[in-house]
Amino acid sequence: MQKPWEGRFREKTDELVEEFTQSVSFDQRLALQDIRQNLAHLKALRMAGIVSEEEEKLLRKGLEEIEQELKENRMEFSKAWEDVHMNIERRLIEKVGEVGGKIHTARSRNDQVVTDERLFIKEELLKILEGLRELRRTLVLLADRTVDVIVVSYTHLQRAQPIRLAHYFLAYREALLVDAMRFAHAYRLADSLPLGSGASAGVDFPIDRFFLARELGFRSLTRNSLYAVAERDFILEVLYACAVCGMHLSRLSEDLILWSSEEFGFVSLPDRFCTGSSIMPQKKNPDVLELIRGKTGRLYGNLFALLTVLKGLPYAYNRDLQEDKEPLFDSLDTLKSILVVLKPLLEGLSINSEKTYSSAGNFALATDLANYLVLKGMPFRQAHKVVGSLVAQLLEKGKSLEEVSLEELKAFSELFEEDALSLLKPEKVADRRKSYGGTAKEQVLLQLEVAKREEGL
Amino acid sequence: MQKPWEGRFREKTDELVEEFTQSVSFDQRLALQDIRQNLAHLKALRMAGIVSEEEEKLLRKGLEEIEQELKENRMEFSKAWEDVHMNIERRLIEKVGEVGGKIHTARSRNDQVVTDERLFIKEELLKILEGLRELRRTLVLLADRTVDVIVVSYTHLQRAQPIRLAHYFLAYREALLVDAMRFAHAYRLADSLPLGSGASAGVDFPIDRFFLARELGFRSLTRNSLYAVAERDFILEVLYACAVCGMHLSRLSEDLILWSSEEFGFVSLPDRFCTGSSIMPQKKNPDVLELIRGKTGRLYGNLFALLTVLKGLPYAYNRDLQEDKEPLFDSLDTLKSILVVLKPLLEGLSINSEKTYSSAGNFALATDLANYLVLKGMPFRQAHKVVGSLVAQLLEKGKSLEEVSLEELKAFSELFEEDALSLLKPEKVADRRKSYGGTAKEQVLLQLEVAKREEGL
Amino acid sequence: MQKPWEGRFREKTDELVEEFTQSVSFDQRLALQDIRQNLAHLKALRMAGIVSEEEEKLLRKGLEEIEQELKENRMEFSKAWEDVHMNIERRLIEKVGEVGGKIHTARSRNDQVVTDERLFIKEELLKILEGLRELRRTLVLLADRTVDVIVVSYTHLQRAQPIRLAHYFLAYREALLVDAMRFAHAYRLADSLPLGSGASAGVDFPIDRFFLARELGFRSLTRNSLYAVAERDFILEVLYACAVCGMHLSRLSEDLILWSSEEFGFVSLPDRFCTGSSIMPQKKNPDVLELIRGKTGRLYGNLFALLTVLKGLPYAYNRDLQEDKEPLFDSLDTLKSILVVLKPLLEGLSINSEKTYSSAGNFALATDLANYLVLKGMPFRQAHKVVGSLVAQLLEKGKSLEEVSLEELKAFSELFEEDALSLLKPEKVADRRKSYGGTAKEQVLLQLEVAKREEGL
Amino acid sequence: MQKPWEGRFREKTDELVEEFTQSVSFDQRLALQDIRQNLAHLKALRMAGIVSEEEEKLLRKGLEEIEQELKENRMEFSKAWEDVHMNIERRLIEKVGEVGGKIHTARSRNDQVVTDERLFIKEELLKILEGLRELRRTLVLLADRTVDVIVVSYTHLQRAQPIRLAHYFLAYREALLVDAMRFAHAYRLADSLPLGSGASAGVDFPIDRFFLARELGFRSLTRNSLYAVAERDFILEVLYACAVCGMHLSRLSEDLILWSSEEFGFVSLPDRFCTGSSIMPQKKNPDVLELIRGKTGRLYGNLFALLTVLKGLPYAYNRDLQEDKEPLFDSLDTLKSILVVLKPLLEGLSINSEKTYSSAGNFALATDLANYLVLKGMPFRQAHKVVGSLVAQLLEKGKSLEEVSLEELKAFSELFEEDALSLLKPEKVADRRKSYGGTAKEQVLLQLEVAKREEGL
Repeated sequence: MQKPWEGRFREKTDELVEEFTQSVSFDQRLALQDIRQNLAHLKALRMAGIVSEEEEKLLRKGLEEIEQELKENRMEFSKAWEDVHMNIERRLIEKVGEVGGKIHTARSRNDQVVTDERLFIKEELLKILEGLRELRRTLVLLADRTVDVIVVSYTHLQRAQPIRLAHYFLAYREALLVDAMRFAHAYRLADSLPLGSGASAGVDFPIDRFFLARELGFRSLTRNSLYAVAERDFILEVLYACAVCGMHLSRLSEDLILWSSEEFGFVSLPDRFCTGSSIMPQKKNPDVLELIRGKTGRLYGNLFALLTVLKGLPYAYNRDLQEDKEPLFDSLDTLKSILVVLKPLLEGLSINSEKTYSSAGNFALATDLANYLVLKGMPFRQAHKVVGSLVAQLLEKGKSLEEVSLEELKAFSELFEEDALSLLKPEKVADRRKSYGGTAKEQVLLQLEVAKREEGL
Repeated sequence: MQKPWEGRFREKTDELVEEFTQSVSFDQRLALQDIRQNLAHLKALRMAGIVSEEEEKLLRKGLEEIEQELKENRMEFSKAWEDVHMNIERRLIEKVGEVGGKIHTARSRNDQVVTDERLFIKEELLKILEGLRELRRTLVLLADRTVDVIVVSYTHLQRAQPIRLAHYFLAYREALLVDAMRFAHAYRLADSLPLGSGASAGVDFPIDRFFLARELGFRSLTRNSLYAVAERDFILEVLYACAVCGMHLSRLSEDLILWSSEEFGFVSLPDRFCTGSSIMPQKKNPDVLELIRGKTGRLYGNLFALLTVLKGLPYAYNRDLQEDKEPLFDSLDTLKSILVVLKPLLEGLSINSEKTYSSAGNFALATDLANYLVLKGMPFRQAHKVVGSLVAQLLEKGKSLEEVSLEELKAFSELFEEDALSLLKPEKVADRRKSYGGTAKEQVLLQLEVAKREEGL
Repeated sequence: MQKPWEGRFREKTDELVEEFTQSVSFDQRLALQDIRQNLAHLKALRMAGIVSEEEEKLLRKGLEEIEQELKENRMEFSKAWEDVHMNIERRLIEKVGEVGGKIHTARSRNDQVVTDERLFIKEELLKILEGLRELRRTLVLLADRTVDVIVVSYTHLQRAQPIRLAHYFLAYREALLVDAMRFAHAYRLADSLPLGSGASAGVDFPIDRFFLARELGFRSLTRNSLYAVAERDFILEVLYACAVCGMHLSRLSEDLILWSSEEFGFVSLPDRFCTGSSIMPQKKNPDVLELIRGKTGRLYGNLFALLTVLKGLPYAYNRDLQEDKEPLFDSLDTLKSILVVLKPLLEGLSINSEKTYSSAGNFALATDLANYLVLKGMPFRQAHKVVGSLVAQLLEKGKSLEEVSLEELKAFSELFEEDALSLLKPEKVADRRKSYGGTAKEQVLLQLEVAKREEGL
Repeated sequence: MQKPWEGRFREKTDELVEEFTQSVSFDQRLALQDIRQNLAHLKALRMAGIVSEEEEKLLRKGLEEIEQELKENRMEFSKAWEDVHMNIERRLIEKVGEVGGKIHTARSRNDQVVTDERLFIKEELLKILEGLRELRRTLVLLADRTVDVIVVSYTHLQRAQPIRLAHYFLAYREALLVDAMRFAHAYRLADSLPLGSGASAGVDFPIDRFFLARELGFRSLTRNSLYAVAERDFILEVLYACAVCGMHLSRLSEDLILWSSEEFGFVSLPDRFCTGSSIMPQKKNPDVLELIRGKTGRLYGNLFALLTVLKGLPYAYNRDLQEDKEPLFDSLDTLKSILVVLKPLLEGLSINSEKTYSSAGNFALATDLANYLVLKGMPFRQAHKVVGSLVAQLLEKGKSLEEVSLEELKAFSELFEEDALSLLKPEKVADRRKSYGGTAKEQVLLQLEVAKREEGL
């Protein structure tokens, strides 16, 4: 097949090279964005007098037909035409004749591809942001159901202090809110039109880039043509936001995997969200959560793939940059699929509130016994030591903190009174943590109320 | 030495464990932030009635003395006291007696450490932002000197099209502006007070977190205590921003290394910014630029280190999180040192404008010959082929494009006229790229003007 | 569709979950290995008396038919059957009836999948090793052609000392030899049979694993069933070896991209291995080399993806491990495609030996002038300084080292004699480096001879 | 201070540049290796007639004095002398006068530094290999104590099948054995002498590199001088082996963290290997294990840092390579510190064998019930379904598998007989897994015996 650049070449491209350098097998995913760009660019070419009114009509019709073919999956792409841009241009020429070649005036694939990518990213990020919002709403609804479920919080995977389970779900909502900020930031970086930057130096046709930006819905324009074609940091931004969000969800998954183990037994997943074993009849495995945790790997890998590509690359465009697309597509698809599957899984979670309650008793109440002494005037460090010794003794005796008598307490400090014993209830202890953002019921309800309003619930 | 938690323990901590788990050898860097936090926390404890007026005075005096010791490098840290927090508390107790232990009331090291880190990050990011601004100003001044220096732009490291050198420097300024956005975003994430979240569930003393936020200069408060102690994504944000900025500077360095090679010869670095060889007397090496490029490695590595730490970690606090500090310190230090050394290096750059000019002639002018034909009505694809064939023929003859005659042109297309020849000057070709953000002088001057205003020059 | 584990479940698997957890869309690539394993496992089941002679025949026939379907691309895979193993088993049951279910006796997918992967890796690594060998042979043949081509070697991208170009190509052959060691090491790690480890604890049927190892061509057996199903470090090994090899080839590519720039002009690539620009008619771009350099990104990314997956994963099998396959396939495919395209590209390289020769003169000869003084008794450090000063003076005068007169030399040191001048020829200087592994012709010829024998040339 | 290359330079090095480019603050760690190299090189210089017998004596004495100073920590390093090599040379010149400068004859820092690094790596890897061996011995001894401790094995963190705990410890021993193979491979790559490669082209003095290799204890010589100074893949090998080993230990740590949680309660750590909380008196945290898990981050980060540095770097030496040292030192130190602390921790583990035993009962026995039916002739897939349904029913009834009656079994399949009930004991089930490498006592004892012999126990 003829190449667009064949004039200067004395040999046909080697087939190995065609195969090795083609990108159409994956960048065809940008075809609809490319059509959209072409339609806007066509208008700009008309405004610049580069195509006649008649030509514009003809080309528009051709492009619209191709769009239809794309939507109906009828468009055939050929690796010999390298990439999505040349494939569409070629198809256009097939339809309208040589005049189709005019569409590439005042443009290079260097600015064309980043324009498609930015259009694509903007669309995809809106989906991600919506998916994140859905997930946050699910967490808020879960919190709403679990204000009165008491569970222990862990530090070092050791039981720390009683909390309301709602508090836990609201914590992850906070993390996902920050993730949304990250994606919004990525959106802002992508929202700048590079078209009209040409191969790297700008174009020498009177193309109105401000018109193009308005037409394609970009908030701003890139201000330097070299920068516009050389940079891919707007893609890094997406990969990074996906990686961090994946990390957050890997932590949530880890927690739920732990909680659905027989040992913890805090939650159970609906059967329809688990898979079994081909060999062990009793197994009900949290595969979805494990895969979410595992997929952090590819999200991190994609980020580092593109960071590696960009390191030390001279300005402006280099073909290495073609390697930006597959990580981008994969990270977006991965995260979207996670968001979609995680929401109903969370909705289907059933909670064993007896198990969670019993996790929150005993030594998880020790801090408050120390704080009791503090309020009676003992310096905190000393109070800590007193209660630590009490815990050590009880451990040796195999007794729980709830079983302790006032007498036993007094043996450790005369400051203990009757009211110390009444402290030793998980919910009571939880409700003492009234600091803003703490786990006391009043605080949890406050944050829940705020969360509902923020999520429109 | 006595541990703060010794009450519950029946054995002394193994020395290997003390050595392995200590963080004071590196987190002592947060000592001044810790003092600042302690002073604010003390006020809050007073307001809550946990310390008396007298105690407050005593503790304040102790803390201020420690601050003085720190500033004069007189404070001795001990690994037996694990971390900066316990070291300072211990020192306070040495000074004021057991009452010093009150300072840890209503606080855990879990919320304490992230408070210090957020204070630290906010201070450091202001320095980075200032350093970036300085560097951008340097680039603008370089651009101001080089509006009339013509050089070729590269794509695929092959000569592409003539540009004004100022255009190149302004391109990197754009990249650094986006970097500044990233750091500003990181600053925003850090600017939320976690103090008062306790070990993970909040605190059970009436501490006024809003007061603390005002006192410590935080714009907002974390709203969930679990989230506050479990998360480190605000640190990732810094590591990521450093990594991307380092990537940008690795590309700038690569360009300058190429340009200062004998083969390119576009620029030369001042002797004082180069080092020689221990063995080859003629060598003058761009070591600084090479190291900037190489240091991208550690910036990426630090980001990946923390991403790895966080992957799959259950909520809330785990000791793994202690591994957040060294990457943070190293990335900030690395980037700051790069910014400091790069600025004077760029200022000292001398430019060989004859060399750059000659790079921009010959076939770098070919696009415009094709566009000439387009303006005469030939479809772009055909024009491209015509000029491609011309280039191929000239290459075979060993002739340059500037040496071509009208007759030779006409042999390729009758559309060529006398004015085609007058096109073949680099500066003329550059000035045809008048699209917004293009390299035409008028455009470069416009962007330069904007840049000066934005940078306050 | 019925799941193999449905007995214990009360709900059908959610479709989202089927889609999210399925692996057959990518692990079908292991289908032929799975058939091979099934055929061997069938024999072992027969030996253990688990299937009758008749059943064995029936099952064998069924498996062979499926193999044929696979080879003819007629086998249809369904995501509802999750993975390649269940798909093949299901197809077998369709063919031979419920007795087909016997094939999964004494086996779990946990040991089955790693057996397939190890078989696959062993096959693929042999191809990689062969591809590396081909590439080394190409480098040796290039070296054979370029013993008498003189070029400068670079350090810090500054001209350092004259070398024979053959020396350069032989250097990369050394790197690729070490890469082959790495792949051989990876092969050795993969070459251990896990089959018979069951779900994690071993199997309770009298399966002869030693027989299976012989039958499937494994050199050894895994010795612990937990280890066998939990580990993926044998896959890391492949990803790592690919990453390092890719890194080496990124460096070779970088060199050749530099050398084929107009500024260096040392080599030119055949037109059939380059592509042009859609907009700049003169461009001939080294896209293949750029993509090789860029593909380092995905090779690194794949390694870090799997490292991330494995971090902190409890023993033994977790579903996260399913994420091992796509990076594995991608790294192998990427590296194979690079090896295939790079070989003919190197063969087609044309070398401009005049340009390379002239790069090797002038100050690249300075070290030898210093060493001349050393041989006359001057301490090296002093000689270095003397010649450094000479270079500085010549630079100021705009003179080259070859133009210097004896008189000028003597002004710097009385030790210079007539023979110093005769030193100043690149090939002469190169040939002075007679240390073993040095660039003197005799050394290069020696290494070339060794290389030819090692590569069977 | 005077630079060794000052002859050619017209300006003093900027102080910022000195600070930025110096490496002595970290590469001084190679000082003893540098001395060792100097002493060998001195002999070679003598053999080549470059230094006289008297000079040799003088220089040797100087070097030995410096060695003494180093060992006594009396040597002062100065950043103005850039690196460890120039510092030592400078010190030598201070001691013996200008003749000290002769030591750098026939050598460049480019080959000098990799020689030091290779010497260093070889020493360090022997320590790592010894540390790994110690840890494996500890695991074998643990296995020896726990052959009769029954525990459940996990897949998907769900209870899978009963195993002997010894089996678990032996599994990790297998992983560490493969780690040792990796380090041995890294050792082999490092074990090749680069000295005598000069700046990149070899040296022009008659230095006997074979003598140097023998003298410095290298098994082989690098065969190409460019390769010798340009490559750092021998360092990657170390970083990679550390990363994988760290990954293995992160998994072991994760398991032990889980097992020492209250929920699992399988093991408890000695108090001396735990730390407490500054605020919660009851806490006993597995900090050491958490930090081991967390330190995987830096091990991965270091690997990626150097991979990044090397990507796309042109041949031969570039200053970027200076960034190889800190990751190397850090990964080695990190891994060594982990090995040292983990061994006594494992030795101190106390195991709650009642808890582990009870984990291994109930549904963890289900597979064997299915296999029972298989042995009675039912196809495996059907047997799986039968037992799955039984499990589902018991779950609904809240009954355990051990409580089931023959009658209840028969309701699911007539094939069940009395002996099915006697199957339902964890140790019995474990002992059915007699496949080679399985968890049956006879198999575990066999592997234990082999392990003891391999580890010399």
